[in-house]
Amino acid sequence: MENKVLIFDTTLRDGEQSPGATLNLPEKLEIARQLARLGVDIIEAGFAIASPGDFEAVSRIAQDVGQHENGPIITSLARCNKTDIDRAWGAVQAARKPRIHTFLATSDIHLQHKLKLSRNDCIEQVGDLVAYARGLCADVEFSPEDAGRSDPEFLYQVLDVAVAAGATTLNIPDTVGYCAPDEYGALIAGILKNVPSITAKGVIISVHCHDDLGLATANTLAGIMAGARQAEVTINGIGERAGNTSLEEVVMALKTRPQFFKGLDTRIDATQIVRTSKMVSAMTSIPVQPNKAIVGVNAFAHEAGIHQDGMLKNALTYEIMRPESVGWTSTNLVLGKHSGRAALADRLKQMGYELPREELDKAFQRFKALCDKKKVVMDADLEALLADQLEQLNEVFKLDHINVTTGTGNTPVASVRLIDEGGELREDAALGNGPINAVCNCINRITGADAKLLEFHVHAVTEGIDAIANVTIRVEMTADDKKKYVFSGRSADTDTLVATGRAYLAAVNKGLARGAKSSAVNAGKIEAV
Amino acid sequence: MENKVLIFDTTLRDGEQSPGATLNLPEKLEIARQLARLGVDIIEAGFAIASPGDFEAVSRIAQDVGQHENGPIITSLARCNKTDIDRAWGAVQAARKPRIHTFLATSDIHLQHKLKLSRNDCIEQVGDLVAYARGLCADVEFSPEDAGRSDPEFLYQVLDVAVAAGATTLNIPDTVGYCAPDEYGALIAGILKNVPSITAKGVIISVHCHDDLGLATANTLAGIMAGARQAEVTINGIGERAGNTSLEEVVMALKTRPQFFKGLDTRIDATQIVRTSKMVSAMTSIPVQPNKAIVGVNAFAHEAGIHQDGMLKNALTYEIMRPESVGWTSTNLVLGKHSGRAALADRLKQMGYELPREELDKAFQRFKALCDKKKVVMDADLEALLADQLEQLNEVFKLDHINVTTGTGNTPVASVRLIDEGGELREDAALGNGPINAVCNCINRITGADAKLLEFHVHAVTEGIDAIANVTIRVEMTADDKKKYVFSGRSADTDTLVATGRAYLAAVNKGLARGAKSSAVNAGKIEAV
Repeated sequence: MENKVLIFDTTLRDGEQSPGATLNLPEKLEIARQLARLGVDIIEAGFAIASPGDFEAVSRIAQDVGQHENGPIITSLARCNKTDIDRAWGAVQAARKPRIHTFLATSDIHLQHKLKLSRNDCIEQVGDLVAYARGLCADVEFSPEDAGRSDPEFLYQVLDVAVAAGATTLNIPDTVGYCAPDEYGALIAGILKNVPSITAKGVIISVHCHDDLGLATANTLAGIMAGARQAEVTINGIGERAGNTSLEEVVMALKTRPQFFKGLDTRIDATQIVRTSKMVSAMTSIPVQPNKAIVGVNAFAHEAGIHQDGMLKNALTYEIMRPESVGWTSTNLVLGKHSGRAALADRLKQMGYELPREELDKAFQRFKALCDKKKVVMDADLEALLADQLEQLNEVFKLDHINVTTGTGNTPVASVRLIDEGGELREDAALGNGPINAVCNCINRITGADAKLLEFHVHAVTEGIDAIANVTIRVEMTADDKKKYVFSGRSADTDTLVATGRAYLAAVNKGLARGAKSSAVNAGKIEAV
Repeated sequence: MENKVLIFDTTLRDGEQSPGATLNLPEKLEIARQLARLGVDIIEAGFAIASPGDFEAVSRIAQDVGQHENGPIITSLARCNKTDIDRAWGAVQAARKPRIHTFLATSDIHLQHKLKLSRNDCIEQVGDLVAYARGLCADVEFSPEDAGRSDPEFLYQVLDVAVAAGATTLNIPDTVGYCAPDEYGALIAGILKNVPSITAKGVIISVHCHDDLGLATANTLAGIMAGARQAEVTINGIGERAGNTSLEEVVMALKTRPQFFKGLDTRIDATQIVRTSKMVSAMTSIPVQPNKAIVGVNAFAHEAGIHQDGMLKNALTYEIMRPESVGWTSTNLVLGKHSGRAALADRLKQMGYELPREELDKAFQRFKALCDKKKVVMDADLEALLADQLEQLNEVFKLDHINVTTGTGNTPVASVRLIDEGGELREDAALGNGPINAVCNCINRITGADAKLLEFHVHAVTEGIDAIANVTIRVEMTADDKKKYVFSGRSADTDTLVATGRAYLAAVNKGLARGAKSSAVNAGKIEAV
């Protein structure tokens, strides 16, 4: 145990707080299953009190992945009050190994400006509520938010109280990404030295860093070297602002430099890293830059078979890890038009997708349709199709037909036909300053949505001129509480414009489901045929 | 001087070695001018011997940016031999402050496997060639490649010889991104302690780190804290594999934490960081991930005016730097259809572009055409148009006309008309499994190129449904030396498919200019009209 560092993955909680990254329930379940396969020790599945959707997602993950023998601990975040803690417990209690994770800020800046709480009240609240959580659950984690900017002496007091109240893990967040590695390492060492009850009771110290100055991985490793034995991380380092510590960087630094890191290691199956990275990127629609360590498409570019202008290199002289060790495979050609349903199901299972029968049927239909347009179907193609399929749930409007004509010298024109919830067909046409603009204008016209396009991205899923295009869209819409929200939509198709229409409609559908204004509910309505 | 850390920017050398990032001369010049505005101390403008194009780019930068009073030192990389050093000197000597940067590996793994050189021969070569370079130029930098994996005792010997031979800067590269911060800091401290001639002669120690384990920024800062006073960095951290240290992270870590970093600082004008980041991303076509520290679009997301589902935050409690301090501006609406030529020229100058008259005329025409399609023209739109314009130089084939029809239930069809070098029109039509596929098929058919699409990306340049689409394409083509090369093309237009056609053609043009196979030179030829 001494040499094992626990990996606490918060992709589904802190990662999902990235702007527009909102995941739906089936997506969260698929990611949680993949995290279990990757071998993380703890999954922070959400913030149960945040919304009924969050509660349901945490509960379902507890009932699914949380039932695996030797599977991960399932936890939910909770502020330091009874309502939050009850809700968190309600969501995680079905897991074989549940945990409640509660937090309260301890920096003066947070206590005074955000919480309007005195230091004494803060200590009392931590003692009472950690004890309350411990009364519900044997595994309780406490985080003093903004620990990196807290007065160390006060922090020691709070942590000692939390231990006395029964906390089994103490997590030390550098909430604003402010610390330097030596400084953060010293903070952890200072805590272990000045709060002897931690070691006496076998409480685990956890590190939680943010990347605002590009130092999250170094800070995490410094904390581990100083005695922490749990690291809170996300896949691809996603998260608010500049994001959290990247799981893949911490795991591979420990693995690549065992002598330097004194043999400290994790239980992660590193060969699952690239697959997990791709799944999270596809489902959150947050791209990974090509020069991202470990999981960027160029991270092992000298191995990619791409012949650059420069000198050819000897792997031995320039390589400190093998791409295969993190799951990069040179070839992943798997299926073609003669592959049957069983072959598809088998491959999907290997890729980490466990689909209910109905979803598998849908996936097979789309797979067959794709085989007519693309000779070879790669893992990445299947990944894109599934991400698309999981996205198209709970549709208010369904896309029935789309047609676009564009080019130099013409004004681009789109015609779109949708099916509304009542099964009625609605169609219209619109011009645009480009074909995508025309498609979006036309969908706005039919649905009456006030959607404003914020971001638009397309990328080819695989190499080759016949590749599938993956389209990601973020729109801003005004919900019924008059606030503006960001909704994302994505789709994948060999036809970029069809994918654009579906992605835009997926985003608009999410907005409409949230009560976003639809000013012309009867627009484009035509007789059902 | 003691407290100043020199910033050595190698975006144009190590950064340009990123797969497919090849920059042409006008692009390199624009980036060099922006780097000067940013305030970097040294620009590594290229590797002069690598190609005639590289030599010309370094020379032109030396003759342009290198003439500024108080402007940057201009340097070129050179292997440790007379031919390389002569070529580097030939390229940089016109600068007011030229530097020769020569390197030789010192790790046993490189000496034995790559160079087949004994340690004694290595020492002799360094002494002879550094002295030779110093005979040409008063400012000579020497880098022991793979220093991070070299035997320290041998490294000390080599460095002492380099100092004796006249090196004025010693750069210590962690070539393979292998070091941990404490280890790299100890390496620098060990060098300063064991090679007393460095301090005696006032030689500057430089740090050069790679991000394979996500530790480049932390290693660079550890090296600086141990006594290094030059940092080699790139904008956005681009570079081979996982890339180099990010300029912006090192600069802002020092600025944000002066107490921790003992008042060490750089001469960088931080308010130019975001502008430089966007220019480099646009010209290299290497995207910046949204959660990238400092320059990612979400790095200050709580400031972006986007109302998230979560709690609204108080800047004081969650912010360690102001977005304005690195050049994020909340509004950059500048021009519209009533803006004249002078207003455009003025704005472009503020944005860092100094265009010759002919290029400015072209830019103005495109700006006016854009105003007809888009109500407000933002800085980002101008950035995209200029990046496109600089891309469309030296065309073998020019796009004359393009038309596409697609949708559900139709087979996508494209017709394209090109103008070849002789001014003849060539046109053809092609089907595809999507509209982009149809356009690319059609261009392949007309040009006879054997281009294979490797990557395809589109993103909207600004918010809003009428935004310009920026298309980036990378293709692989076989050149006349029978080797495969990667060529990139990009374009920007409100019509994604027009931009796709131009970007694909730009990539194919580069390949054809390099002698890539064109198997059907008369394809699509029609009578000139």
